[in-house]
Amino acid sequence: GFATLDTDRMRRTGLPEVIYSSGKTVKQVAQIAKRMYQNGMDILATRVTDAMFDAVKEVVPGAQYNPLAKTITYKHSEKKTGKGYVAIVAAGTSDMPVAEEAAETARFLDQKVETVYDVGVAGIHRLFHKLEVIREARVIIVVAGMEGALASVVGGLVDKPVIGVPSSVGYGANFDGLSALLSMLNSCASGVSVVNIDNGFGAACQAALINKLN
Amino acid sequence: GFATLDTDRMRRTGLPEVIYSSGKTVKQVAQIAKRMYQNGMDILATRVTDAMFDAVKEVVPGAQYNPLAKTITYKHSEKKTGKGYVAIVAAGTSDMPVAEEAAETARFLDQKVETVYDVGVAGIHRLFHKLEVIREARVIIVVAGMEGALASVVGGLVDKPVIGVPSSVGYGANFDGLSALLSMLNSCASGVSVVNIDNGFGAACQAALINKLN
Amino acid sequence: GFATLDTDRMRRTGLPEVIYSSGKTVKQVAQIAKRMYQNGMDILATRVTDAMFDAVKEVVPGAQYNPLAKTITYKHSEKKTGKGYVAIVAAGTSDMPVAEEAAETARFLDQKVETVYDVGVAGIHRLFHKLEVIREARVIIVVAGMEGALASVVGGLVDKPVIGVPSSVGYGANFDGLSALLSMLNSCASGVSVVNIDNGFGAACQAALINKLN
Amino acid sequence: GFATLDTDRMRRTGLPEVIYSSGKTVKQVAQIAKRMYQNGMDILATRVTDAMFDAVKEVVPGAQYNPLAKTITYKHSEKKTGKGYVAIVAAGTSDMPVAEEAAETARFLDQKVETVYDVGVAGIHRLFHKLEVIREARVIIVVAGMEGALASVVGGLVDKPVIGVPSSVGYGANFDGLSALLSMLNSCASGVSVVNIDNGFGAACQAALINKLN
Amino acid sequence: GFATLDTDRMRRTGLPEVIYSSGKTVKQVAQIAKRMYQNGMDILATRVTDAMFDAVKEVVPGAQYNPLAKTITYKHSEKKTGKGYVAIVAAGTSDMPVAEEAAETARFLDQKVETVYDVGVAGIHRLFHKLEVIREARVIIVVAGMEGALASVVGGLVDKPVIGVPSSVGYGANFDGLSALLSMLNSCASGVSVVNIDNGFGAACQAALINKLN
Amino acid sequence: GFATLDTDRMRRTGLPEVIYSSGKTVKQVAQIAKRMYQNGMDILATRVTDAMFDAVKEVVPGAQYNPLAKTITYKHSEKKTGKGYVAIVAAGTSDMPVAEEAAETARFLDQKVETVYDVGVAGIHRLFHKLEVIREARVIIVVAGMEGALASVVGGLVDKPVIGVPSSVGYGANFDGLSALLSMLNSCASGVSVVNIDNGFGAACQAALINKLN
Amino acid sequence: GFATLDTDRMRRTGLPEVIYSSGKTVKQVAQIAKRMYQNGMDILATRVTDAMFDAVKEVVPGAQYNPLAKTITYKHSEKKTGKGYVAIVAAGTSDMPVAEEAAETARFLDQKVETVYDVGVAGIHRLFHKLEVIREARVIIVVAGMEGALASVVGGLVDKPVIGVPSSVGYGANFDGLSALLSMLNSCASGVSVVNIDNGFGAACQAALINKLN
Amino acid sequence: GFATLDTDRMRRTGLPEVIYSSGKTVKQVAQIAKRMYQNGMDILATRVTDAMFDAVKEVVPGAQYNPLAKTITYKHSEKKTGKGYVAIVAAGTSDMPVAEEAAETARFLDQKVETVYDVGVAGIHRLFHKLEVIREARVIIVVAGMEGALASVVGGLVDKPVIGVPSSVGYGANFDGLSALLSMLNSCASGVSVVNIDNGFGAACQAALINKLN
Ligand SMILES: Nc1ncnc2c1ncn2[C@@H]1O[C@H](COP(=O)(O)O)[C@@H](O)[C@H]1O
Ligand SMILES: Nc1ncnc2c1ncn2[C@@H]1O[C@H](COP(=O)(O)O)[C@@H](O)[C@H]1O
Ligand SMILES: Nc1ncnc2c1ncn2[C@@H]1O[C@H](COP(=O)(O)O)[C@@H](O)[C@H]1O
Ligand SMILES: Nc1ncnc2c1ncn2[C@@H]1O[C@H](COP(=O)(O)O)[C@@H](O)[C@H]1O
Ligand SMILES: [Mg+2]
Ligand SMILES: [Mg+2]
Ligand SMILES: [Mg+2]
Ligand SMILES: [Mg+2]
Ligand SMILES: [Mg+2]
Ligand SMILES: [Mg+2]
Ligand SMILES: [Mg+2]
Ligand SMILES: [Mg+2]
Repeated sequence: GFATLDTDRMRRTGLPEVIYSSGKTVKQVAQIAKRMYQNGMDILATRVTDAMFDAVKEVVPGAQYNPLAKTITYKHSEKKTGKGYVAIVAAGTSDMPVAEEAAETARFLDQKVETVYDVGVAGIHRLFHKLEVIREARVIIVVAGMEGALASVVGGLVDKPVIGVPSSVGYGANFDGLSALLSMLNSCASGVSVVNIDNGFGAACQAALINKLN
Repeated sequence: GFATLDTDRMRRTGLPEVIYSSGKTVKQVAQIAKRMYQNGMDILATRVTDAMFDAVKEVVPGAQYNPLAKTITYKHSEKKTGKGYVAIVAAGTSDMPVAEEAAETARFLDQKVETVYDVGVAGIHRLFHKLEVIREARVIIVVAGMEGALASVVGGLVDKPVIGVPSSVGYGANFDGLSALLSMLNSCASGVSVVNIDNGFGAACQAALINKLN
Repeated sequence: GFATLDTDRMRRTGLPEVIYSSGKTVKQVAQIAKRMYQNGMDILATRVTDAMFDAVKEVVPGAQYNPLAKTITYKHSEKKTGKGYVAIVAAGTSDMPVAEEAAETARFLDQKVETVYDVGVAGIHRLFHKLEVIREARVIIVVAGMEGALASVVGGLVDKPVIGVPSSVGYGANFDGLSALLSMLNSCASGVSVVNIDNGFGAACQAALINKLN
Repeated sequence: GFATLDTDRMRRTGLPEVIYSSGKTVKQVAQIAKRMYQNGMDILATRVTDAMFDAVKEVVPGAQYNPLAKTITYKHSEKKTGKGYVAIVAAGTSDMPVAEEAAETARFLDQKVETVYDVGVAGIHRLFHKLEVIREARVIIVVAGMEGALASVVGGLVDKPVIGVPSSVGYGANFDGLSALLSMLNSCASGVSVVNIDNGFGAACQAALINKLN
Repeated sequence: GFATLDTDRMRRTGLPEVIYSSGKTVKQVAQIAKRMYQNGMDILATRVTDAMFDAVKEVVPGAQYNPLAKTITYKHSEKKTGKGYVAIVAAGTSDMPVAEEAAETARFLDQKVETVYDVGVAGIHRLFHKLEVIREARVIIVVAGMEGALASVVGGLVDKPVIGVPSSVGYGANFDGLSALLSMLNSCASGVSVVNIDNGFGAACQAALINKLN
Repeated sequence: GFATLDTDRMRRTGLPEVIYSSGKTVKQVAQIAKRMYQNGMDILATRVTDAMFDAVKEVVPGAQYNPLAKTITYKHSEKKTGKGYVAIVAAGTSDMPVAEEAAETARFLDQKVETVYDVGVAGIHRLFHKLEVIREARVIIVVAGMEGALASVVGGLVDKPVIGVPSSVGYGANFDGLSALLSMLNSCASGVSVVNIDNGFGAACQAALINKLN
Repeated sequence: GFATLDTDRMRRTGLPEVIYSSGKTVKQVAQIAKRMYQNGMDILATRVTDAMFDAVKEVVPGAQYNPLAKTITYKHSEKKTGKGYVAIVAAGTSDMPVAEEAAETARFLDQKVETVYDVGVAGIHRLFHKLEVIREARVIIVVAGMEGALASVVGGLVDKPVIGVPSSVGYGANFDGLSALLSMLNSCASGVSVVNIDNGFGAACQAALINKLN
Repeated sequence: GFATLDTDRMRRTGLPEVIYSSGKTVKQVAQIAKRMYQNGMDILATRVTDAMFDAVKEVVPGAQYNPLAKTITYKHSEKKTGKGYVAIVAAGTSDMPVAEEAAETARFLDQKVETVYDVGVAGIHRLFHKLEVIREARVIIVVAGMEGALASVVGGLVDKPVIGVPSSVGYGANFDGLSALLSMLNSCASGVSVVNIDNGFGAACQAALINKLN
């Protein structure tokens, strides 16, 4: 095969091998999914297209598609681990694809998830209305583009680890996500760490590792 | 003389000629100040040093020094114009030099000024305690470094023009103010415009032009 | 609905909720427009396509399309507020889409508007011919790409607030608007502030807030 | 006073107010430390100089100085919270100041700490010798400059959250830490998040929040 | 003809003239290939498309196409020079196109080649399994995107020259290969040099010059 | 000697060998100057310090020092070549050191020079007052920092070649001259070319080559 | 009309108004061309497409198309001015479109032109074979992408002004022409100035102004 | 001890442990040198100061200082390995410190070295005069700042591997070595690879590994 599946990864890192579909052909994605399905492995494919789902559902009966998140998931059985839930907070409606990638990934990693969307700082009262559900989480993912201010604001209001995901939403001097990235790296709130631009997947991986801690 | 004073500037632009002391010698600053004093012009010098003030006070009796703002001011007579006041809001104590440069400039331009300092988003309740005085202003200057989120948050809470001043406060990936600059340029609040990094002076100039409108 | 309209925004910030169509589908834009129309809200959609207008005009009779500005507008009734007018000055013919986005937005926000186009510094006499109408405005928006010099030149000639909009017009070392952005941020004229690259909308929002001041 | 201590911060965010000494005078640092001492607050000052410690120890008997970390600490009483320990891993000897800032901060936040230094990828066998102590931690901080590869390597070997701290160690095309920062943000290991360049303090804050989870 | 073939290049630099197809038309590529074929020159075309191969095979019977590497090759006769072989190591499956460009180029330059793919640092045990074949090479090419850590890790494990090829694989803050490029330039292993992003061709050229040394 | 003087340069390029003093010791500069003096060569040293002049005047009687330009010059005999003169236009008083470096270099290269300083676009009427002397020149050098608009404005008013010299004057988002550099490279006036930031020397070299054309 | 032709430009700047077609529709270009033709003006349109030429030739009989240069030209009568010729030197075959834009523009501006293509530093002997024709020119344009070294090499061999045009030819760390741009700005040869990336048009404008000097 | 010497490095990578003195105290450097001396290890310290040498020579009799290279070396016995020699070519006199760091390192690694300095492209005939000694080398290091063109020119003239070292020599738009770095990475000559800015040490390490190949 063209790809060497790192089958030991789950045991070693607590995170399974996953299909990153960007730059792969429809055929390749379907083939890897089929192989994983036949080996009894659970399947998460990110950055998929509609065509990829059409091909995968032929070989993986019961595969689920989230067209906003651009993910395909299939789990042989469902269970929830972690003591609490992961809160996923997003600033605007345009940030929802990244937030949903995080949500799908977290659920795939057996996490309970609560989503709080469209609460950006342009109308900060919306955030305060949802503060309870955010504060009660064990770990919080904040997705925001443009000036990315939401990560700092949330970080200053909670006593839980905050993982910022800068999104590429915006134009001009957002430089494809650089503005939100720098914002979050320079957060004046001390408990905030950051992952790559648009990387909902990575944020959910770390959130799951945190929430799995006993 | 080495510098051609643009004496017509006040009439043309509503803003007088001012001494930008960075890159000038102590002697040059004192000499220009003296010339302006003798011509009956009001004096504002920005980015001054202690030594510059020592030299200027010899030739301009009554000159005032703000060591935090790094400004020297002298006005032949005091008056206040503008219908209301300019609010100057700053995120952290380290942003105060820039905020004070703005305050001194605005006062020099005959503006009433209210300052609201140390209300950054790491503890956003502090901002809400001061919201009344901010909302009542006719124009608002917001100074913030690091992730510069305060400009967006204020912009989303008021119905007055907001002028953001990104400060160079921070280190590492703040890239000397770039993070706050990009943040403010990408503000999700629509009524925010921006001036150069650390440019308290320029923000106050625009604020004065706005507040002078009848 | 997929989007939570911030219906309180007008009261809080003086600026209504608006449809930013980039990254939305034709169907989504039409749906939001319809909902706003039915709720008696005025409608401004920016960054629209021809197809979006075709869909919107089905559900919002009387909707207006400006194909240069890429805006759709609909107002239940017309009125003009503000004591004077907003002048919108553009350097070249290629800057007109951004300038028109500003003009449509300002008019939507009940402002009187005067436009002065194609007066860039390559032939600066063209600017001087129009100086009167610029100087009489209460607030001035200057749109320019390439070296963005026009904002500084205008800023040095008027005693009103100038809002610079760097445009992405140009190629090579303009780096998609960076050259004009840095130019305007470093304007040697003191009363100039800046919004994001190509952000005619934001400039008009701030201009309206300024002109609404009594 | 010149600074408004955010005394509610501990309750709200789980992290106390701290003295960031960069850009403050010796006198200011000593004064704030004294005030906190008298109020019964624990003291952590980061980015201090020798002179600052000399001044602080006059007013805070028992204050501790870590000259490598550039920190002053004082705790009214010692306790350790968190179920396990924080591992702090550093690539080279030049990364030790940043690693020690993290270690001092974590201890100040009542964490047990294990340090594993000088195990960079230029001699990766050194890392494997220490793998046990790293894997047993509940959360891992990795400090590395130059190409910052260590964060990815550790991230691929453990099933615990990894917080990367890019250091500014290096020269030329490291662009003051940019190389390590971009490296860590693009880590091919999925459970890695990142804080600002040289921000040992922030990494320890998040590590403490994680380790405090029950 | 539109291009002046530098026919002396082989004698002067040890590397023959080659067709860089990017930015050329199908017709141009076929025409140059034909001319070289008729002159008895060996042919290597890089960055080709399927259509280019279709056109070239009409005029160069026996031309070989590597669709992954995007290369066309034709050699009038085969021979292998160099005392040993060139090892080509790649981090992920997405790096294979660049690695294959290197492999095809090296073989075209009469080198024996061993490839070791999908051994990135996210699962570093995979690298150790293949260490023997890497260490026995006379020169090693390492292709990696994202954080590009593999070049440093390999550089710290072998006593042969390592040529790093940063790939543009990744997204967001990889800035089209910048992250891997800076990583490799700042390698903490001392025997590593670097070529342009995605430049498998250039790496193979230098590897061949090295391996041809007696 | 430590430096190989390129004595043929004058004949080959029309420009003599010159001492670039930055990064050289006082002793080295004096030694090279002495050697050139004894060989009958004319001397131009740029970027000198006061101490360098003190040392040079000991060994080169009659050497001239321009402390603003930071140049030392010595010519065995004076003559003027070129049909007309070089105009050197500068925006602000802070740009004068760069402008004077250009002036001293041009004079050293036997050019007649006219200087027009402090005519930046913040008060553009000052430029119009001096337009005659600028238009009559055979070639024009324009020095400007901050937004560097002056080069475009002059370029749009004259029918002679304009060489722009971006200066590093400014702060914050001028990024040490980048703003003026990008401005001038994107000039909307077509006859403008650009040299390196602060490179008055290079601009004068090209101006001299132009003015020497018969 | 949508564009205000600057009909005075020729008299004022020695360079006529020209159609920059990028961002204009086929119809707009044809319309402007027609208007200019009817007014007796000569026509140069740059950055045109095949479709634009098809439209223009309908309304401007005798219009010439250079598909490599992407220019349309029409002159009511031919004449050559300037005492000598402009040499246009290009590094590689991929740089020819930019070089041809320069050539067409220079000829349109009544200049004699000599072109010397495919003489880049990878085979520098090719340059030396053509040195005579380069040295005899009155002004030299050098087009080069990638490392842009050719401008410095030519600058060190001639006593005429050299105008460098960095081209965007290359990939990866050429960053769309930035590498060649920085190279040329830092040329160690003193008589080199630079225009925007890919700006053959601008280089030819300045070359014409230079060659027109008596 | 504060540093864990990687004593196995020589066997594993063919390159011994070395003292990188930047960021270390005089005392630390002397202490490490002493320890290495007593263990019978050869000593190379890079980036040293005069004071460091004064301290080292007290504890390592016979230590050699190269004040230009900023290196201290001590070898228990001399031998030369490698079949031929390493040529080190530098563009200007200001590049000599970097070139000498490379030369000292190469000699320390038992290489024969030939240096060819001050042969930059501003006077390219100087390079041709020395071409024989460059072509006869087994591997060539090219040091150049500013536009870094020398690496490409040499690469196009020889059939041996060329390692480019971009130097930080220059100012303004050289951006501390970025211009030369990008130049060399985009070299149009195919056999050129690159190390970090100013990294003479690393270039010599790779050159030694190459020349040691049998
Ligand atoms: N052209 C524009 N540029 C920047 N912001 C805009 C533009 N048009 C609309 N907006 C803002 O975008 C908001 C809608 O964003 P969303 O919730 O993502 O639909 C509006 O309320 C405006 O504040
Ligand atoms: N080394 C550090 N890096 C980043 N933030 C810090 C550091 N040390 C302290 N801080 C933060 O800075 C705040 C104090 O900032 P200030 O109000 O400017 O004194 C503290 O409450 C911490 O949240
Ligand atoms: N290829 C080109 N690059 C840069 N500027 C150009 C080019 N072609 C034309 N121009 C300039 O663009 C102007 C027309 O711009 P516009 O008013 O936007 O049509 C002309 O008068 C020229 O000065
Ligand atoms: N000038 C230099 N540039 C880059 N790396 C160096 C230099 N000199 C020494 N080194 C490397 O730095 C290592 C020592 O780093 P450290 O453990 O921080 O003292 C040595 O083993 C070399 O591999
Ligand atoms: Mg919304
Ligand atoms: Mg504070
Ligand atoms: Mg026009
Ligand atoms: Mg070490
Ligand atoms: Mg893989
Ligand atoms: Mg002035
Ligand atoms: Mg060629
Ligand atoms: Mg020299």
